[in-house]
Amino acid sequence: MSAEAARESGRSVKWERRREAIVDTSAHLFALQGYHATGIAELCVANDLGKGALYHYIGSKEELLAAIHDRVMDEVMLGAERVAAAEVTPSQQLAMLGEELLDVIHRFPDHVWVFLHEFRALTGSRAEQFRRRRAEYERRVENVLRSGVESGEFRAIDPWLTVRAWLGMHNYTYMWLKPGGRLTARSVARPFAEIFMQGIAEANQLGD
Amino acid sequence: MSAEAARESGRSVKWERRREAIVDTSAHLFALQGYHATGIAELCVANDLGKGALYHYIGSKEELLAAIHDRVMDEVMLGAERVAAAEVTPSQQLAMLGEELLDVIHRFPDHVWVFLHEFRALTGSRAEQFRRRRAEYERRVENVLRSGVESGEFRAIDPWLTVRAWLGMHNYTYMWLKPGGRLTARSVARPFAEIFMQGIAEANQLGD
Repeated sequence: MSAEAARESGRSVKWERRREAIVDTSAHLFALQGYHATGIAELCVANDLGKGALYHYIGSKEELLAAIHDRVMDEVMLGAERVAAAEVTPSQQLAMLGEELLDVIHRFPDHVWVFLHEFRALTGSRAEQFRRRRAEYERRVENVLRSGVESGEFRAIDPWLTVRAWLGMHNYTYMWLKPGGRLTARSVARPFAEIFMQGIAEANQLGD
Repeated sequence: MSAEAARESGRSVKWERRREAIVDTSAHLFALQGYHATGIAELCVANDLGKGALYHYIGSKEELLAAIHDRVMDEVMLGAERVAAAEVTPSQQLAMLGEELLDVIHRFPDHVWVFLHEFRALTGSRAEQFRRRRAEYERRVENVLRSGVESGEFRAIDPWLTVRAWLGMHNYTYMWLKPGGRLTARSVARPFAEIFMQGIAEANQLGD
């Protein structure tokens, strides 16, 4: 978090950094043993904090879970913004979206694991915000697909199902795309984009 | 389970049926709240059994988890056997594999949820058997891809990565492909096969 953002929130940069570290440590614990199975006492030990101090930083266990989700969505949406700002064709936008998404999955394995497994534990307005942000990202991908159909790059596809095919192919890499492994986000994103883009290409665009 | 299989196991058909019902009920509970967070006492209540009777059927909580995994893998491998027995092209085999896989995901949402989220809770020989069966299935898909490359239907792809792209696209449907929903396994499998097969087709096979 920037000094400016910290001032706006009324918290010190140091406080925000400590909170982020707690979010990261807790994401690791939740990823290992599950959100429901992880108690506040374990979170205190892992973060080297007493109960009062932990709550001072996180508010509640569910707020901590929401912060883990936001960490993923913040990164994913930043990537989507970069793609939207690039003046390129729908095909190139889709390839960029894939690389940005795999980059987040590659860099935040614990957060993404928790994101994909524990989202149902969010309730009320936190669940609502999570759904809204996730839907907003899916809408972005869908819009790229629709633009590609309009421009004649992509054939007439079912946008809703095609977004889900694309998301599945990319999201599911969280199972095996890990930091320090032999594969980089880019080395996976390229062949995936080749398969997907050839897969939805309009016939007259093939073999270019 | 057939009467014959029940005789072989030394258990009655009634006993095996009761055990299968316990596996199904427990899969629902694990899917809802997580394996680690679900205690034996809750399993007893959900299955309307005392602790001794529950253990009589399941052996241990981890054995129950293994049985849930096997229920999924049994069905997935049966589908793979049907595909292997069909005398069709690699493209058609891949399309059939997709439809068989989505059919399992569609019919067993709880078991698949547990399968994909809790496999790391299996230990020792149970973990080993799970990995072996999963690898065997992945090898089958990979062999279909290799056959398609050899026959000239598919372009020169990285088989390992392409299996993972295919698995991701299909497995990830567990998030939204539910019994009673508007979508059937087949209505999803067809457009998915169209995307994937066009995506890996050799150039001279396109537009046929």
